[in-house]
Amino acid sequence: MIRNIRQLSKVIKKTSSRKKYYHPPGTAPGTIIIDEDSQKPQIYLIDYNQINLVHQEIKNPEDCQPYLDTKSVSWVDVQGLGNQDILERLGQVFELHPLVLEDVVNMAERPKSEDYEDQLLIIARMVTPTDTNEGFCSEQVSFVLGKNYLLTVQEEPEYDCFEGVRNRIIKGKGIIRKQGADYLAYSLLDAVIDGFFPVLEMYGERIEELEEEVINDPTPKTLQKIYRLRRELVQLRRDIWPQRNVINSLIRDSSEIISDEVRIYLRDCYDHSIQVIDMVETYRELSSGLMDVYLSAVSNKMNEIMKILTVVSSIFIPLTFVAGIYGMNFNPDKSPYNMPELNSYWGYPICLGFMALIAGSLLFIFWKKGWLSHSISLKE
Amino acid sequence: MIRNIRQLSKVIKKTSSRKKYYHPPGTAPGTIIIDEDSQKPQIYLIDYNQINLVHQEIKNPEDCQPYLDTKSVSWVDVQGLGNQDILERLGQVFELHPLVLEDVVNMAERPKSEDYEDQLLIIARMVTPTDTNEGFCSEQVSFVLGKNYLLTVQEEPEYDCFEGVRNRIIKGKGIIRKQGADYLAYSLLDAVIDGFFPVLEMYGERIEELEEEVINDPTPKTLQKIYRLRRELVQLRRDIWPQRNVINSLIRDSSEIISDEVRIYLRDCYDHSIQVIDMVETYRELSSGLMDVYLSAVSNKMNEIMKILTVVSSIFIPLTFVAGIYGMNFNPDKSPYNMPELNSYWGYPICLGFMALIAGSLLFIFWKKGWLSHSISLKE
Amino acid sequence: MIRNIRQLSKVIKKTSSRKKYYHPPGTAPGTIIIDEDSQKPQIYLIDYNQINLVHQEIKNPEDCQPYLDTKSVSWVDVQGLGNQDILERLGQVFELHPLVLEDVVNMAERPKSEDYEDQLLIIARMVTPTDTNEGFCSEQVSFVLGKNYLLTVQEEPEYDCFEGVRNRIIKGKGIIRKQGADYLAYSLLDAVIDGFFPVLEMYGERIEELEEEVINDPTPKTLQKIYRLRRELVQLRRDIWPQRNVINSLIRDSSEIISDEVRIYLRDCYDHSIQVIDMVETYRELSSGLMDVYLSAVSNKMNEIMKILTVVSSIFIPLTFVAGIYGMNFNPDKSPYNMPELNSYWGYPICLGFMALIAGSLLFIFWKKGWLSHSISLKE
Amino acid sequence: MIRNIRQLSKVIKKTSSRKKYYHPPGTAPGTIIIDEDSQKPQIYLIDYNQINLVHQEIKNPEDCQPYLDTKSVSWVDVQGLGNQDILERLGQVFELHPLVLEDVVNMAERPKSEDYEDQLLIIARMVTPTDTNEGFCSEQVSFVLGKNYLLTVQEEPEYDCFEGVRNRIIKGKGIIRKQGADYLAYSLLDAVIDGFFPVLEMYGERIEELEEEVINDPTPKTLQKIYRLRRELVQLRRDIWPQRNVINSLIRDSSEIISDEVRIYLRDCYDHSIQVIDMVETYRELSSGLMDVYLSAVSNKMNEIMKILTVVSSIFIPLTFVAGIYGMNFNPDKSPYNMPELNSYWGYPICLGFMALIAGSLLFIFWKKGWLSHSISLKE
Amino acid sequence: MIRNIRQLSKVIKKTSSRKKYYHPPGTAPGTIIIDEDSQKPQIYLIDYNQINLVHQEIKNPEDCQPYLDTKSVSWVDVQGLGNQDILERLGQVFELHPLVLEDVVNMAERPKSEDYEDQLLIIARMVTPTDTNEGFCSEQVSFVLGKNYLLTVQEEPEYDCFEGVRNRIIKGKGIIRKQGADYLAYSLLDAVIDGFFPVLEMYGERIEELEEEVINDPTPKTLQKIYRLRRELVQLRRDIWPQRNVINSLIRDSSEIISDEVRIYLRDCYDHSIQVIDMVETYRELSSGLMDVYLSAVSNKMNEIMKILTVVSSIFIPLTFVAGIYGMNFNPDKSPYNMPELNSYWGYPICLGFMALIAGSLLFIFWKKGWLSHSISLKE
Repeated sequence: MIRNIRQLSKVIKKTSSRKKYYHPPGTAPGTIIIDEDSQKPQIYLIDYNQINLVHQEIKNPEDCQPYLDTKSVSWVDVQGLGNQDILERLGQVFELHPLVLEDVVNMAERPKSEDYEDQLLIIARMVTPTDTNEGFCSEQVSFVLGKNYLLTVQEEPEYDCFEGVRNRIIKGKGIIRKQGADYLAYSLLDAVIDGFFPVLEMYGERIEELEEEVINDPTPKTLQKIYRLRRELVQLRRDIWPQRNVINSLIRDSSEIISDEVRIYLRDCYDHSIQVIDMVETYRELSSGLMDVYLSAVSNKMNEIMKILTVVSSIFIPLTFVAGIYGMNFNPDKSPYNMPELNSYWGYPICLGFMALIAGSLLFIFWKKGWLSHSISLKE
Repeated sequence: MIRNIRQLSKVIKKTSSRKKYYHPPGTAPGTIIIDEDSQKPQIYLIDYNQINLVHQEIKNPEDCQPYLDTKSVSWVDVQGLGNQDILERLGQVFELHPLVLEDVVNMAERPKSEDYEDQLLIIARMVTPTDTNEGFCSEQVSFVLGKNYLLTVQEEPEYDCFEGVRNRIIKGKGIIRKQGADYLAYSLLDAVIDGFFPVLEMYGERIEELEEEVINDPTPKTLQKIYRLRRELVQLRRDIWPQRNVINSLIRDSSEIISDEVRIYLRDCYDHSIQVIDMVETYRELSSGLMDVYLSAVSNKMNEIMKILTVVSSIFIPLTFVAGIYGMNFNPDKSPYNMPELNSYWGYPICLGFMALIAGSLLFIFWKKGWLSHSISLKE
Repeated sequence: MIRNIRQLSKVIKKTSSRKKYYHPPGTAPGTIIIDEDSQKPQIYLIDYNQINLVHQEIKNPEDCQPYLDTKSVSWVDVQGLGNQDILERLGQVFELHPLVLEDVVNMAERPKSEDYEDQLLIIARMVTPTDTNEGFCSEQVSFVLGKNYLLTVQEEPEYDCFEGVRNRIIKGKGIIRKQGADYLAYSLLDAVIDGFFPVLEMYGERIEELEEEVINDPTPKTLQKIYRLRRELVQLRRDIWPQRNVINSLIRDSSEIISDEVRIYLRDCYDHSIQVIDMVETYRELSSGLMDVYLSAVSNKMNEIMKILTVVSSIFIPLTFVAGIYGMNFNPDKSPYNMPELNSYWGYPICLGFMALIAGSLLFIFWKKGWLSHSISLKE
Repeated sequence: MIRNIRQLSKVIKKTSSRKKYYHPPGTAPGTIIIDEDSQKPQIYLIDYNQINLVHQEIKNPEDCQPYLDTKSVSWVDVQGLGNQDILERLGQVFELHPLVLEDVVNMAERPKSEDYEDQLLIIARMVTPTDTNEGFCSEQVSFVLGKNYLLTVQEEPEYDCFEGVRNRIIKGKGIIRKQGADYLAYSLLDAVIDGFFPVLEMYGERIEELEEEVINDPTPKTLQKIYRLRRELVQLRRDIWPQRNVINSLIRDSSEIISDEVRIYLRDCYDHSIQVIDMVETYRELSSGLMDVYLSAVSNKMNEIMKILTVVSSIFIPLTFVAGIYGMNFNPDKSPYNMPELNSYWGYPICLGFMALIAGSLLFIFWKKGWLSHSISLKE
Repeated sequence: MIRNIRQLSKVIKKTSSRKKYYHPPGTAPGTIIIDEDSQKPQIYLIDYNQINLVHQEIKNPEDCQPYLDTKSVSWVDVQGLGNQDILERLGQVFELHPLVLEDVVNMAERPKSEDYEDQLLIIARMVTPTDTNEGFCSEQVSFVLGKNYLLTVQEEPEYDCFEGVRNRIIKGKGIIRKQGADYLAYSLLDAVIDGFFPVLEMYGERIEELEEEVINDPTPKTLQKIYRLRRELVQLRRDIWPQRNVINSLIRDSSEIISDEVRIYLRDCYDHSIQVIDMVETYRELSSGLMDVYLSAVSNKMNEIMKILTVVSSIFIPLTFVAGIYGMNFNPDKSPYNMPELNSYWGYPICLGFMALIAGSLLFIFWKKGWLSHSISLKE
C-alpha cells in the first residue's frame, strides 16, 4: 500500500506545486524570483500578415524590436523561465510595467486580466492529462497583448496546446491570417479552454470505473481513489473558475485593443468555459455521491459479515449446549431421575434427531430471511 | 448483478453522451465535425400565412430560398446531421455566421441565446423518457429565428415534441396562423419546456417507489437505484437551468425580432421553466433524503442482526457453562466435596430446572426489551 | 407497518398532487383543461361601498356585469372549477387575457403576479392543516384585480381562510368598507399568509414530539416520521418562497391599480411572509439536525447491544473453558501428572472458587467501565 | 434522563416562545392582542437637554404630551404590555400609525425598520443569558424615533440592557446630553447589539466544554447537548441577522430624522453586528464539526467493544475446543488409535502446555495489533 | 491523552482569544479599555523623503508633531497598548476621531476600512505560524493614513512582518523612497497579506501528513487533529475574508489620499488576497474530505475486527460441537445404537479427520473471500 501512497502524493505534489511560489513577506513589488531548476527561456517569433510569414527562433530579446515596429502581427512565444537577465531585457523591449513582469514570471498567479492602457495582461492556466492518465499537469500561460503584437510566456517548453493554432497560421488555414493580434490571442485562449476537455473526459472515465468498483468490489483502495479524485477536481475547479471571469471581463470591458468582431468569437470561448465549469461541478457532485455509496457499501459488507457470524453461532451454540447436557456426569445409578436417557435404548439416535431438528429449523429461518446465500458465497 | 450494472451504464452513457463531442484544442472556430453514424438530414418546410399553407419535404437546401423571400412565415425543420455538404449549403441559404453553423451542428452545446443583428440563435435541449421509462434521452434543438422564417435543427428524426405545434398550424387551430415567426418559435420553445413534465412525472413515481422500497426492504440494489436517480437528476438539472436564462434573456433583451405580444407569451413559458427547476430541486432534495434514510435503514438492520446473535449467545452460553460444570470429572469418591450433586437423588432434575430458570429469566429480559419479536420473524 | 406507509403516501399524494396537472407538450397556450371530478363552480358576489352592501350567490357569470359597471367595490368569489362553459363566460365578462384564464384554471401554477395593464393577476397558494393534524392541504387561489373589482378563484369550496375578511366587510368592522378593491386584495392576501401560521405551529409541535422520541425511544418508525416531516417542509417551502416575491413585486412595481396607502399595508404582509420563510427554514434545519441525532442514537443502541454480548461472552466463555478442562478424560491412574486435581480432596470447591474469582474480576472490570447498568436494564 | 429532557424543553420553549403569537387569519390589520398574563405597562420618562434633566415615572400616557412639545429630548420607556387601554392612548399621544402600534405590541415581529415620514419605527431583539447560564432569553424592543423624542417599548420590565445608557444620561457622561434623540436611539441600539457578546461568550465556553467531553467521554447526553447547542444557535442567528439589515438601512436610507454625524456612529454599531454574525456562524460550524466528531467517537467506541469481544472469543474458543477433544469418550481399550493420549504419562501436562502455547501466540498477535491495552483498561 | 487536550486548548485559546474583548453593553462609544497585562507602547518613527531619513524611537507622542508638519513621509509605528495616557495623547497629536481611537485600541475588531475625510482608517489582521508550527497567532494591525503620514498600531512588539519594508526604506531599495505615504501603506498591507502564505504552507503540509495518517493508521488522535485543523481553518478564513473587502474598497472608493498609481499596486495586493482565500477554501474542502475518509477508515477497521471474530468463531464453534457430541455419556452397553463409534477401532482418527475436513473447508471459504490475510497480519 505504501507504494500507492507514494504515487498518489507524487501526483498531488505535481498538481498542487503552485503553493511553493511566494515571496517572503515585505519583498518589494515587481521583484522577480527565478527558479534555478527551470529551463532556460527559448524565444520563438512568428510574424505574419495575409501575405508574408516569418517563423524563427530568437536568441536576444532585442531582436524582436524590428518586428514589433512593423504593422504585421508579431507573436513572440517564450518557453521556460530560467534566466533573469533575458526576462528583464524582454520586459524592456515590450515596455512592461514591473508588476506585469512579476506576474508573468511568478508561476503561482491566479488567472486574471488587467488593462494597462496600451497593453492587456491575461494570465491563464493550461491543463494536460499526465502520461499515465492518472491526473493532470497545470501550467501557467501569460499573454501580453498589444496593438499588433502578442507576447506569450509558458513555464515549460515540453508541451503546449498551441500547436493547432501555429499550424493554422503557417498553413494559412481559416481566417487567422486576415485578422489582428487580438484574434490570435482569442485563438490561443480558445485552445487553452478546449484543452480542458480531454482532461474532463479522463475524469468522466475514471468516475465510471469508480462507479463499477464501488458497487461491485469496494476496498479501502477505492476510498483512496475517490478521495484523490475529489482532490484533483477541487484543483481543476480552482483552475477553470477564474478563467471564466477573465474571458467575461475581456468581452465586457471596453479596451480598444480587442475589436468588436473578436468579442463575438470570445462569447463562443466563454460558452466553452461555462461548459467546462458545468462538467467539473457535475463530476464533483457525482464524486461526493460516490463517497456516500462507498460508506453504504462498507456498512452492507459489515451486515454480511455479521450475518455469517450470527448464522454459525445461532446454529451451533444451541447444539453444543444439548451435547453439553448429555456430557454431564450425573450418576444414573443413584436415582431413576438422573439422566435415564443415557441408558435408554434409543437415547443417542433420538438425541441426534433432536439436534438435527433444531439445526433444520434454524436453517429454515435463516433461509427464509435470505441470509444463507451470502454465508456460503465464495466471493466477498 | 453484473447485468444491472451494464444496463445502468448504458442508460448513463445515453444521458451523458454529450461529453464525447469536442474539437481537438486549437481547431479553427466554425469548424464543422460530422458524426458519420448519425442520420442524413431530412428537411421539412411548412410555409403558412392566415390563408395558405405549404407543407413538404425538401431535397436541396436551395429550394427554401423562394419561400424565405415571401412575407409568409417559413418554418424549415432539419432532422439529422449526417451530411456536411447539405449543412453548409443550408448555412449559405440562411446566411448563417460560421459560429452559428458550428453551434447548430455541434451537439454538445449548452442552451443559450445569441443575437446576430437580424438573426436570433437559440440553443435548447429537449428531453423524453426512454421507452422502458428508466431514464430520459436528451437531444439538442437549435432555432435560428429571422424576421419571417424559423430554422430548427434536431439531431435525431425519430422523435420530437413538435407534433402538437405542427398540427395546430396545419389545422389552423388557435391563433398560430395569425401570428409571425416569433410566435412559432415561442410555441416550439414552450413545447420543449412542457416536454420536461412527463420526465418529471416519471421521476416523481420512481421516488415514490424508492421511498417504499427503502423503508420496507432496503437492499444494495436500492442503493444503486438511488445513486442512479441522483445522477440522472444532476443531468436533468444541467439541461433545464440554462434554458431558464435563455427564455429570460429573450424576454428582457430588446431584439426587434420578437414582438411585445410574444414576450407576454414567453413570460408564461418562463414560469413553466421555473416550475420545472423547482421540481427538479425538490426531487434532488428528496433523493438526498432517501440516501440518509437508506443509511439509517442499513444501520437498523445491523441492529436486528446483532440482537439475534446477542439473544442466542446470551441464553445458550451460560447454559452450556452449567452443563460444562457437571461434565467435569472430579472424583466424588475421593471427597464428599467433589461434586456430590452428581450422586444426589434429585441432582439432574434440579440442574435442568436451574437451567430452565436461567433461560426463562433471560428470555423475560429480552422480551421486555422487545428484542424477541425480531429474532423469530421470518421476514428480514 | 404497511398501514403506516399507506397513510404516509396518502398524505404525501395530497400535498404533492400538483404534479399531475400539465398539458401535453405542444398544446396551444390558453387551453383550459377541466378536471371532471372537481366541483361545479359556485359564484358569490359581495358588492359594497361605505353605505350599501349586496351579498348573494350568482348563477350566470353575466349577472356580475351590472355590478362591475358601478363604482362600488365588487368582489366575485368563484369556488370550484368543474365547468368549462361557466369559466369561459366568466373570462368574457371580466375580459380576461387567454393566458390569465389558463393560469386561473390550471391548478398547478407557481405563485406569481403579472401586470396586464388594467388588470393585475396574482396567483397565491393557501395552506390548511389536515383534520388529523398530520400534514397540510395546499390550494391555489387566483386574484384578478381591476380598478374597482376583484375576482378570486378557488379550487375547492369546502374551506377557505377568507371568512374573517367576509365578516369584516359584512359587519363593517375596521376600515375595509372605506377602501377600494386593492385594499380588499391586500386583506385576502394577508389572510392567505397568516394561514401559514397554524400549519407552522403544528410542525413546531411535531418537531418537539420527534425530539423527545428520537432521544428517548428511536425506532425505525421515528425515521419515517423525520423523513415525512422533511418532505412536507420541502413542500411548504415551495409554497411560501414565491409568495414573498409576489408581495414584494406588488410593493415595488408601479402599477396604478394599487394605491400608495395599500402599499404600506402590503409591507406588513411582506414582513409576515418573511417570518413564515424564517420559520420554515428554521424547522428544516432542526429536522436535518434530528436526522443526525437519529443516526447517532441508532449507533448508540448498537453499542449497548454489543456491550451485552461482550459482557456475557467474556464472562462465560472463559468459565466454560475451565469447566472443559476438568471434563477431559486424561487417566489419573496412568500418571501422577494426569489431572491429579480430580482426585484431590478440595479439587471441586477450589475449582468453583477459581471460576467465581474469574467471573468476579470480569464483572468488576465491566462495572468499572459502566457497562453493567445497560446489560440488565429492562428498557431498551 | 427524563428530568434532563424536561429542562431542555423548558429552555427551548423559552427561546422559541415567539411562535405562539399570531392572529387568526383574516383579522383586520392594526388589531392589538393583549396577553393577559403579561405585566401592566410602566412608563418612565427621561427628558433632557444639555442643562436640565427630568426623570420620573408617568401614570397616564397623556402626561407625556407637554414634554414632547418642548425642544429637549424626551425618552419615553414603556415596560410591560398588559393593558390595551394604556397602549392605545399612548398611540394617540405619539400619533402612531395603526400598523406601528400593532408591530410594537405584537411580540413576534422580526427585526425591521420602517420609515413613516416623521417617525421611524425600529424593531430590535435583545438577548440575555439565563440565570443558569444554560441558554438565553430573547425579548423584543421597539423604537419609535421622532424629531426630538424616542419611544421605546419592552415586553418585560425585569431586565434590560439600557441601564448603562440611562446612567450616562443622568450623570451627563460622554457627549450624549449634547446630542439629539437620534443619538439616543443609536446608543440604545448599540447597547442591544453589545448585549449579544455575553451570550456569545457563554456559547464559546459551552463549545469548549463540549469539545473536551466529546473527545474524552462521549455519552448520549453529549449528543443531546450538541443538538441543543445547535438549536439555540439557529435561534440566535435568527435574532441577529435581520438586525444587521436594520442598522444598514438606517445608515443608507435618507431619512432626515437621523443626522449624518449619528450615521458615522451607526457604522460602528453595524461593524459590531457583523462581528456577532461572524461569531454565530463560526460557532455553528464548530458545533456541526462537533457532531461529526461525536459520530466518529461513537464508532471508535464500538471498535473498542468489538476488540474486547474478539480478543476474548478468539483466545478461549480454540482452547475450549481442545479441552472438548479430550473430553470425548472414545474407548482407548478398544483400539490403540482411540485417544491414546489419555493414558500417556505426560498427556495432561503436554495438553496444558499446548493450550498455553495457543493462548500465548494469540495474545502476542493481539498485543502486536495494539488491542490489549484497550481490553484491560478500566476506563471506558 | 489529557496532555494533548491541554495543548490543543491552549493553541485554540490563543487563536480565539479575540472573543474576550468587549465592552459591557451600554458603554459610551469611544471608550478605551486597556488590558493591563499587555506591553507598554513603544513608538518608532521613520521619516523619509527621497534624500533624507530619520529613524528613531520616540518617548512622548507629542515629539511626532514636528515630523508630521513637514512634507516628508512620516511613519509612526506604535507597538504595545498597555498605557491609556500615551494612547490618548497620540490620538490628540494625530487628531483622531474618538471612534478611530477606540477601533485602534480595541483588539477585537474585524478588518475594515473607513474614510474620515482627511484620514483613512484601515484595520487588518496579521498572522504568523507559532514556533512549534502547530497553529498560528493572529494580531491586529491598525493603519491611520493621512496625506503625508502613516500611523500603525500593533498589539505585540515581539513580532511583525514589516521588517522587509523597513529595510527597503532604510536601504533605499526599490521605488519606496520616491513614493508617498499611500505607497508605504500599500507596502505594509502587502506584507500583511503575504504573511498568510507561510501559514498556508504549514497547513498544506499538515494536510498532507494527515492524509497519510488517515489512510495508513487512523486513530482517535487523528480525529482530534482533523477537528483542530478544521477549527483553525475556520479561524483563518475569518481573518482573511474581510481583508479582501478592505483592499477592494480601497481600490474602488474615491478617497483622495490614495493616488491612482498606488491603486494599480493595490490590485496586485487584492489578487494575492484572493489567492489566500482560494487556498483556505481548498484546504477547508480537503479537511472535510479527510473527515469522510476517517469515518470510512474506522468502518473498514470494524469490518476487519468482525472478520477475525467471524473466522475464529465460525471455525471453532462447529468443531467444539463435534467434540461435544462425543463427550456425551450415552451408555453403549445398553444399546447398539448408543454411540457405537466410541468403541469402534477407527473412531477417534475418523472423528479427528472429520474435524480437519470441516476446518479446512471453512478456511478455504474464508481464504476465497480474502479474509485470512487480515486476520493474521500483525499490523492493525
